[in-house]
Amino acid sequence: MSASPRPRIGIIGTGAIGGYYGLMLARAGFEVHFLLRSEYAAVAREGLRVRHAQLGELHLPQVNAWCEAAAMPACDWLLVGAKSTANAELAPLIVQAAAADAKVVLLQNGLGVEEALRPLLPDSLHLLGGLCFICAHREAPGVVVHQSQGVCNLGYHSGPADEAQRLALLEQGVAWLREAGIESAPIADLAQARWQKLVWNVPYNGLSALLGASTRLLMAQADSRALLLALMEEVVAAAEAAGAPLPANYPHKLLAYTDRMPDYLPSMYHDFAQRRPAELQAVYAAPLAAAAALGVEMPRVRMLYQALSFLQARAQG
Amino acid sequence: MSASPRPRIGIIGTGAIGGYYGLMLARAGFEVHFLLRSEYAAVAREGLRVRHAQLGELHLPQVNAWCEAAAMPACDWLLVGAKSTANAELAPLIVQAAAADAKVVLLQNGLGVEEALRPLLPDSLHLLGGLCFICAHREAPGVVVHQSQGVCNLGYHSGPADEAQRLALLEQGVAWLREAGIESAPIADLAQARWQKLVWNVPYNGLSALLGASTRLLMAQADSRALLLALMEEVVAAAEAAGAPLPANYPHKLLAYTDRMPDYLPSMYHDFAQRRPAELQAVYAAPLAAAAALGVEMPRVRMLYQALSFLQARAQG
Repeated sequence: MSASPRPRIGIIGTGAIGGYYGLMLARAGFEVHFLLRSEYAAVAREGLRVRHAQLGELHLPQVNAWCEAAAMPACDWLLVGAKSTANAELAPLIVQAAAADAKVVLLQNGLGVEEALRPLLPDSLHLLGGLCFICAHREAPGVVVHQSQGVCNLGYHSGPADEAQRLALLEQGVAWLREAGIESAPIADLAQARWQKLVWNVPYNGLSALLGASTRLLMAQADSRALLLALMEEVVAAAEAAGAPLPANYPHKLLAYTDRMPDYLPSMYHDFAQRRPAELQAVYAAPLAAAAALGVEMPRVRMLYQALSFLQARAQG
Repeated sequence: MSASPRPRIGIIGTGAIGGYYGLMLARAGFEVHFLLRSEYAAVAREGLRVRHAQLGELHLPQVNAWCEAAAMPACDWLLVGAKSTANAELAPLIVQAAAADAKVVLLQNGLGVEEALRPLLPDSLHLLGGLCFICAHREAPGVVVHQSQGVCNLGYHSGPADEAQRLALLEQGVAWLREAGIESAPIADLAQARWQKLVWNVPYNGLSALLGASTRLLMAQADSRALLLALMEEVVAAAEAAGAPLPANYPHKLLAYTDRMPDYLPSMYHDFAQRRPAELQAVYAAPLAAAAALGVEMPRVRMLYQALSFLQARAQG
């Protein structure tokens, strides 16, 4: 599968996700370029670091760091690690950094992120979703702490490829990620996979922010554990109505999976703690709208969204 | 109606509610005795103060303050202003302070508070509910800030009075409260009135604690306002299933009523802010259980209860 020449890779948004995957690819010998904003000076000077749970401290001393997308060399693959809240303003930067037939991979949570970005991209670009299962957070400029996992599965959303080309393209991307030591698999149905990932993100992201609590605290107390389960069950019912059936007993499997995870503060916890915009649109509003259009209510999910929206509006004054 | 000799009144729990009504009765010339715990010394020394929204600073310099119920003279009416979380340990104190046919009035929120206390009281005692509509909070030991309102409606729960005696007894109590300048009316159906009051307490008490927000903030933001309404509608549906029909459009009337109130931090906000036990049993668990027994789910109310239970358990270590 790796007969194609290795691609030039661009990372748009070098936070925990972009930093982790970009560093892993670079240390495997891929040519990786990083677009940075506030962390540009620190990364250009100090490089990138990942404190890897299994591999120890990984340091990329010489980083192809860029503070302007227009200056970057044209990239064949672009991994977008920036939060979906910034997608509208990111679109022109993605276009500037992209080769004519580039593959743009949204490493983002939630629903509808590809649909929102697609009209802002030229038809020649391939748009993919990259579903990351990873516990990692940014500790300081250019420093990512990796706690566990690191999967990145790829699904094709839209673009010029026909059915056969899509499959080949996904398999090529998956093969390159695996060369870099990243667990990866092709996703047959991206919409289904996004709903499936929401079953974790909806309860844990929101409750960690609302209650100021880590996964382990939420799992340890009977009331919050019951609430996690009830939220999951609402998402599962909506997913099934949306034509995205999930594995049997999926909520209970996710609870067991999270019990085995290290204690974790999801990204939305950090967003609220640091008063950054959180991905409420993609993780809550879009699934709620999709479910409502199918006549499915998710009362607890809506309540969580309303509570988080209140807190976010107040934090923004 | 006031042909009976004036009663000796005891206040069990002299926080905002007990302090306010006790002071109003004492300044109208009633003999009022106050049972205090942590504030005993301050009140015995400095007296009681109510900063009244309409009447200005009211001071009761000489207070019949007691730190032991057994030492109190037998009271004909006992107004219980302590929180319902302490009812089990309050019961023996109530019995010690009560005359043989005393009227015990629970000035408490929620459902089932009389049912929980009744088995702990002798049959000779009359048990009443007192539903208070008042914005007040305790500012310092012996100092109550009154912001608005001050209604106290009385309903008979259980005891030795027959139907006719109950009505006479309520009218007598109402008349005495009115003599003290306290707006009051008899309640025909105490269970119905408790459900009706819950339509306010369930959303505002819980959300103020969960979101750390006053009524005005909660009312001003579209998401939290919609959530207040959705919570109210769940309580209304449960009340109707429980045989307690409410006035037409009651949630919208309550929203309009709250829009006219001064900005207010409900008691549960203060309980959480000061890490005191909150009335989660009476305001949430009991209505949820009553509704569930009738086959009615209140998903948002349950979620609010679960979130508050999590926070309370964590605060208590």
